[in-house]
Amino acid sequence: MTERKYVYVFGPDGAEGNREMRDLLGGKGANLAEMAHLKLPVPPGFTITTEACRYWLEHGALPPELPKQIHRAMRHLERTMQRHFGHAEYPLLVSVRSGAPVSMPGMMDTILNLGLNHETVEGLVRMTGNLRFAHDCWRRFIAMFADVVLEIDDTYFEDILTQEKRRADVRQDFELTPPEILRVIERSFTLIEEHTERAFPHDPWEQLSLAIEAVFRSWKNPRAIMYREQKRIPEYLGTSVTVQAMVFGNFSNRSGTIVAFTRNPSTGEAQPKGEFLLNAQGEDVVAGVRTPESLEQLAAILPEAHEEFLEVVQRLEKHFGWPQDIEATIEEGHLWLLQTRDAQCEPEAAVKFVVDLAESGALTRTQALLRIDPRELEKIFRERLVQSDDADTIATGIPASTGTAKGYAVFSSEQASAWAHRGIILVREETSAKDLPGMIASRGLLTARGGFTSHAAVVARGMGKPAVVGCSALEFNRNNRTARIGKTIIREGMPITIDGSTGRVFLGLRKTIKPIPPQELFTLLSWADEWCSLEVWANADTPEEAIVAQELGAKGIGLCRTEHMFREENRIPHFQKMILSEYPDERREALAILQKMQKEDFKAMFRTMADKPLTIRLLDPPLHEVLPSLEDLSRRIKQLWKTFRQQEEIVALSAGLHALREEGLAVASRRREIEGKLEEARKVFRRNPQMQQLERMIRRVETLEEANPMLGTRGCRLLINYPEIVEVQTRAIFEAACELVREGLAVQPDIMIPMVSCKEELLFLKEIVSRVASQVMDEQGIRVSWRYGSMIELPAAALSAKELATVAEFFSFGSNDLTQTTLGFSRDDAGPIFALYRERGIHGFDPSESLDPRVEELMTIALQRGRSQNPKLKVGICGEHGGDPRTIEICHKLALDYVSASPYRIPGARIAAAQAAIRGSSHATEEKS
Amino acid sequence: MTERKYVYVFGPDGAEGNREMRDLLGGKGANLAEMAHLKLPVPPGFTITTEACRYWLEHGALPPELPKQIHRAMRHLERTMQRHFGHAEYPLLVSVRSGAPVSMPGMMDTILNLGLNHETVEGLVRMTGNLRFAHDCWRRFIAMFADVVLEIDDTYFEDILTQEKRRADVRQDFELTPPEILRVIERSFTLIEEHTERAFPHDPWEQLSLAIEAVFRSWKNPRAIMYREQKRIPEYLGTSVTVQAMVFGNFSNRSGTIVAFTRNPSTGEAQPKGEFLLNAQGEDVVAGVRTPESLEQLAAILPEAHEEFLEVVQRLEKHFGWPQDIEATIEEGHLWLLQTRDAQCEPEAAVKFVVDLAESGALTRTQALLRIDPRELEKIFRERLVQSDDADTIATGIPASTGTAKGYAVFSSEQASAWAHRGIILVREETSAKDLPGMIASRGLLTARGGFTSHAAVVARGMGKPAVVGCSALEFNRNNRTARIGKTIIREGMPITIDGSTGRVFLGLRKTIKPIPPQELFTLLSWADEWCSLEVWANADTPEEAIVAQELGAKGIGLCRTEHMFREENRIPHFQKMILSEYPDERREALAILQKMQKEDFKAMFRTMADKPLTIRLLDPPLHEVLPSLEDLSRRIKQLWKTFRQQEEIVALSAGLHALREEGLAVASRRREIEGKLEEARKVFRRNPQMQQLERMIRRVETLEEANPMLGTRGCRLLINYPEIVEVQTRAIFEAACELVREGLAVQPDIMIPMVSCKEELLFLKEIVSRVASQVMDEQGIRVSWRYGSMIELPAAALSAKELATVAEFFSFGSNDLTQTTLGFSRDDAGPIFALYRERGIHGFDPSESLDPRVEELMTIALQRGRSQNPKLKVGICGEHGGDPRTIEICHKLALDYVSASPYRIPGARIAAAQAAIRGSSHATEEKS
Repeated sequence: MTERKYVYVFGPDGAEGNREMRDLLGGKGANLAEMAHLKLPVPPGFTITTEACRYWLEHGALPPELPKQIHRAMRHLERTMQRHFGHAEYPLLVSVRSGAPVSMPGMMDTILNLGLNHETVEGLVRMTGNLRFAHDCWRRFIAMFADVVLEIDDTYFEDILTQEKRRADVRQDFELTPPEILRVIERSFTLIEEHTERAFPHDPWEQLSLAIEAVFRSWKNPRAIMYREQKRIPEYLGTSVTVQAMVFGNFSNRSGTIVAFTRNPSTGEAQPKGEFLLNAQGEDVVAGVRTPESLEQLAAILPEAHEEFLEVVQRLEKHFGWPQDIEATIEEGHLWLLQTRDAQCEPEAAVKFVVDLAESGALTRTQALLRIDPRELEKIFRERLVQSDDADTIATGIPASTGTAKGYAVFSSEQASAWAHRGIILVREETSAKDLPGMIASRGLLTARGGFTSHAAVVARGMGKPAVVGCSALEFNRNNRTARIGKTIIREGMPITIDGSTGRVFLGLRKTIKPIPPQELFTLLSWADEWCSLEVWANADTPEEAIVAQELGAKGIGLCRTEHMFREENRIPHFQKMILSEYPDERREALAILQKMQKEDFKAMFRTMADKPLTIRLLDPPLHEVLPSLEDLSRRIKQLWKTFRQQEEIVALSAGLHALREEGLAVASRRREIEGKLEEARKVFRRNPQMQQLERMIRRVETLEEANPMLGTRGCRLLINYPEIVEVQTRAIFEAACELVREGLAVQPDIMIPMVSCKEELLFLKEIVSRVASQVMDEQGIRVSWRYGSMIELPAAALSAKELATVAEFFSFGSNDLTQTTLGFSRDDAGPIFALYRERGIHGFDPSESLDPRVEELMTIALQRGRSQNPKLKVGICGEHGGDPRTIEICHKLALDYVSASPYRIPGARIAAAQAAIRGSSHATEEKS
Repeated sequence: MTERKYVYVFGPDGAEGNREMRDLLGGKGANLAEMAHLKLPVPPGFTITTEACRYWLEHGALPPELPKQIHRAMRHLERTMQRHFGHAEYPLLVSVRSGAPVSMPGMMDTILNLGLNHETVEGLVRMTGNLRFAHDCWRRFIAMFADVVLEIDDTYFEDILTQEKRRADVRQDFELTPPEILRVIERSFTLIEEHTERAFPHDPWEQLSLAIEAVFRSWKNPRAIMYREQKRIPEYLGTSVTVQAMVFGNFSNRSGTIVAFTRNPSTGEAQPKGEFLLNAQGEDVVAGVRTPESLEQLAAILPEAHEEFLEVVQRLEKHFGWPQDIEATIEEGHLWLLQTRDAQCEPEAAVKFVVDLAESGALTRTQALLRIDPRELEKIFRERLVQSDDADTIATGIPASTGTAKGYAVFSSEQASAWAHRGIILVREETSAKDLPGMIASRGLLTARGGFTSHAAVVARGMGKPAVVGCSALEFNRNNRTARIGKTIIREGMPITIDGSTGRVFLGLRKTIKPIPPQELFTLLSWADEWCSLEVWANADTPEEAIVAQELGAKGIGLCRTEHMFREENRIPHFQKMILSEYPDERREALAILQKMQKEDFKAMFRTMADKPLTIRLLDPPLHEVLPSLEDLSRRIKQLWKTFRQQEEIVALSAGLHALREEGLAVASRRREIEGKLEEARKVFRRNPQMQQLERMIRRVETLEEANPMLGTRGCRLLINYPEIVEVQTRAIFEAACELVREGLAVQPDIMIPMVSCKEELLFLKEIVSRVASQVMDEQGIRVSWRYGSMIELPAAALSAKELATVAEFFSFGSNDLTQTTLGFSRDDAGPIFALYRERGIHGFDPSESLDPRVEELMTIALQRGRSQNPKLKVGICGEHGGDPRTIEICHKLALDYVSASPYRIPGARIAAAQAAIRGSSHATEEKS
């Protein structure tokens, strides 16, 4: 039986592991092994695998084979370093660090200088000739070990240090003399014995074994568990432990420490960026004890080390194919690399980097594409904060649309329009179509309710405006137009800044920059297109959005929501009038006005898209988002009454009446006369057209109100109820199309029906569309080829796909609604439920962000059944999921024809589509010409 | 090539068709053929098939083979009758009637006496020796023919008749002399020629051919189309035409006509019930020209014919296995049967009949079971109208819960409780849990909105109260507490009657009777149980309902909605308090009170059900049905303010202030003093506990309000949010169970979780239920076996059934919600949509009444996946569909373990389950012992 291997060594003579073994060795261990392979200067050491951790987690004890393997590795290390672990002569000191497969910064603790005790510290003194340094290392080791391994709060040790500094009358740690440090050490031992009722372990082997177990145990500490939950890191992974020979940046004035990025992580500029500290340890940089110097200083002081560093930087970037975040130590002019990992880059930097590398031949284009996180690309287009510290964050909500927006808080659309020139942020409980003018007028949105696919979030992403939604700390006081976050009162007109990339909300106008997308992005996208079989289309509702979509490479418009064309302030009243009409004629009148507007919009969009498909969804406004609120109507009636009562004549009559009432019955006849006059005036007033219209609107809104509008008269149900809407919209589409064809342009109108549940609905509406289309084309003497399609956004539609495909020439998955109905969650109400589920540990998955597997199954069923009926059926997705890389990969596997995403998500979607194609290809390593 | 057979003859020597050929010969033709086979006295004739009709509908012409076949049949008829069609000597007259495969009463017209013209009428005179009679037959034939075939409105002919009667100075038709009748005939011919610009067809063959085509054409008349749409009769069926030799009940005083049921169709009493008219034709009975006599009169006048009639009745019932509705003619003492069809019976009568027949051996028990329409049985338990004419119906809504209720209209729960002793009908726009006290207090429900599964409908059926819902003609005037139906104003306290079996609404208190279920029902049910593999359980929410369920044979309770236990007036405030609590402690306090009540309810229900399963669904109130409305709360606050302002002191202060204001600024200081006092009083008032509680409730309701409550915080989501509810309910269940076990009773609690979408929800709640259950059982020192199950009411749950079955021991399909989410229709809002769909011809299917095939597919998937994980998984259905026979048949095929229906639907469900088993059995004709 072969013994299971739990320990992997690395050093100047190479390594047993490599960077592919991240799951087994953790990120840190795998990269150290990789660097050793590259013969880069890495202090030698060994890594204990995550498998050992999993064994420990399961059995509560280390694997029996482990101690022998550790001994063997340590012997190897001693030989390499020419030092001895636990020996007084040339003692070998080691660091013990955790290393999870997924980077968990700050999660687990490090122990430095392990191996020190009363004897070995003397050896260190002899070796370094520096008594104070050696004792200080010992003191630090004891405190770290007590904190991490023995779980004694480190404030106790800080207290001892503070007391001793006071007794010595010094301010800085390094001002303590060796005897004073020794006193701290002795007091620490006493404290530890009191706490643990055992002596501090002086045996370095015991220290090592306890430290390893402590690292394993820390995988289960509450902070780590919470972090993993938040980042959705699987519990079973476990952590590795890396034991590495200590090197000392504080050895001399030819020593020092470096913390740096191999290049600028914000701009992508190919110059290392970081900090250098002479005669210091890495922790001193982090702790901010001294102000670090720039890397230029290093060039001046230690030019050879700097030269070596620049060379190392080049090799690391090329080898790892990504900008690196590194930690290095210079000991006596000699460079040692302690750690390297992929840097957190802004998307611009990442794009520039991979294109640079691919153009220099260090990466293939395919590798370059795979390196990019498509989720990040959208951020390129957003304004951002210069400083990203969140010291003065006043609240955090759901980051719904990336970018930063700053402006003056306003609480209503009316105020928004008035104040728009000043730059405003619209702050609302939640939004609806009624808020569209305010949303257009504002730079960003902040709402107290709603999730990632709430109205505010969807519209904001469509408009490319930053948004923070579901900021539950935000409380509105409805009466006096203020809001509260904790103790902070927000009044209208107060300056605020929101960061839609992180969900943070700040008081005041924070400094931001507006980025220009780098040319490299378009280079990368052109490479992506060579791979894509899945086309990327756009959700674009207006001519402006269509232009952006076209510029960012959309192969078509997959969703033009015609109701969104009525966002503009001058269109909304006509739209409301149309919906509130009681009779077809009245509705046609309102529609006629809208028809003209829509026709011009369609013309502009056809012109932009030319021969690419323009998928127009016929009107689909959920009634509750369109209707004026009853409260608002009542308020308007009250105001009218108020103006009535303020009329001079009425005031006079009322005063007279009041006076007469006081005088009693004697003047009853006069009183009756005035009362009669007043009543008459009231009657006349009630007949005034404004009053009558408002009262009619109230009756109509009451009639149209629904208990569950999301499951009510929407989509094709509304269209079937009001066929005149279909007629007018079809006319607008075909008049626009015909006029452009006459100009010699190509057009491809695709007409799409929402909320379909059965074939008959499609048939009924197709008859109207076909009839009006033929009529218009006959009038214009022009033929336009067009297609007719169905949204698939109900489980019933997915299951009936075979029948629907007898009528529809294309399908488009409305994954937002399909998710709502499959899971029974309304997007307007789900936010608090999913928050609760995360809190209760049910699950941390939000199906409005990433496709739920049950929704995926229904899509698969629909696709199979639809294509079994009509193999040429064109199928796409136009829900919010269309821009999500995981969803795009699923759509690629399902062999959909296209995904449709909001304009600024198109670059990410194109990269994601390419990545899906690459991963799905058997020639994934092959290069496209 | 064999010629297609379009004509089937019948007569004294047998028939070519039989009763199985209803699709081809129509109901009338098939039964005439059947009677001929039985050698019953049927005037001979022949039937032209529905296939000929379909040919005609498709080609617009009769099949080319048809005329020859008709001639052949007519020759056969002439031989049989010894008369001649179209001959002056012994002319053969025929009737031409339509006969659709499905009875469509009154839909199509009949032509009698066809074959008459100037010559044949003379033959008729000679044959009968009755000039007046012969001419009268002729006159009638011409008018009928003109109406049905030539489409000339029959009022023209009535006008001629009226004018001639006036000219002859007589009142009754039969007072006209032959020459006067002849004048009517001549004028009719002239009128027809003017209208059609052609002469009246005198050739009997032409008359026949035109009459046949007219019958075919009438299949497409608007009245017929509307009827078929309403009754969902397929369009393609077509109608047959029966041509039959005329016999004359008005031949002499030894002649007459009979219209009768073979037995009492209301009570089932085995005595023919109907009417007899001496020397008259069938139409005279229908037209009510003379008051008909009873069948006893027939025995007195024509004892032999009566004897023959009784014999025929016996044979018909036995042979057809169902009470018959017959039309017969006596010509010269000789009985002729013109028609027989299955009678429309009250369910009591039907049950009595089949049990009688089975016990007499004329039917097998299996046949008896198959004869019953399970949908009808529920009606046995409802009060009903004595007269069912709808002459004074003021509106019609959706018949949601059968039976008749009469009482005084009230519009609110408060009034309902106050007036309950008078007998009331609750009339509401729609209902919610808040209306429960009113619903309990009332005899029946009438709502303007909602469909078959709306709150009002579901609760009414559960309570066994008649209900008419979705009565859209009903308009409320919210201010002055009246409602309107067309021009009829309904005020509170006005007497109305509703018929939940037909959806009709009447003014006034109509006469009703309360039936007692016949013993035969229980006999039949015992036969049904011998077949049932699918068990029938009950939806019962209260001890009272459980008793009914037990009496009607439920094998368990499949759904006890614990939120319905709080219907009673004294419980609702505690329930609202619980839901509106902001803190767990406050909620526990309200729950503690409810716990006691629930425990007693559970005890009573366990006691009733004994060892049968009692499936308790943990709390699942859609918030919007439970929360008090904001309007209501605002109103209550306004009332409080009103009482405040009416306080003597406040009135005095206000008056003083007003007076001072009039006097101007001079007394400003005094004014400020009073204003201060008033403001102080207002402040004190605002702090009063009632005000504070109301204001707190408003805040809480605002927080809890959801845009789409049906997709919001319901079911397990609510339970996960408030685990204390689970704890308290579990405690109530197990304390109740343990106490009964201690008494020596057996109990079987099944605990069911609503609105489950994933396994983790089930696991989270199971932990709580298990913990509290063990705790209670430990305290009580008693073990109770219990099961834990999941509702399947979301598509996601159906698709995840395999995972859910790792936790759940049983599944229960919540088909109401599953239908809502699969189809994207909310039951509260779907009514108008489905009405629209019927109107627009999209479809006439209401998925809340009968299972949608897509829902069925999801159920199939869930069942397969669930049982693949756990073959012992118990699976039932507890949605409203559980009582629907079509659904029950599906559930039988899917091999569900049980269906759960509301108590009064149990008998129907048991019969339906037996029928499904019989139909599904390969030994369907076999008898169970």
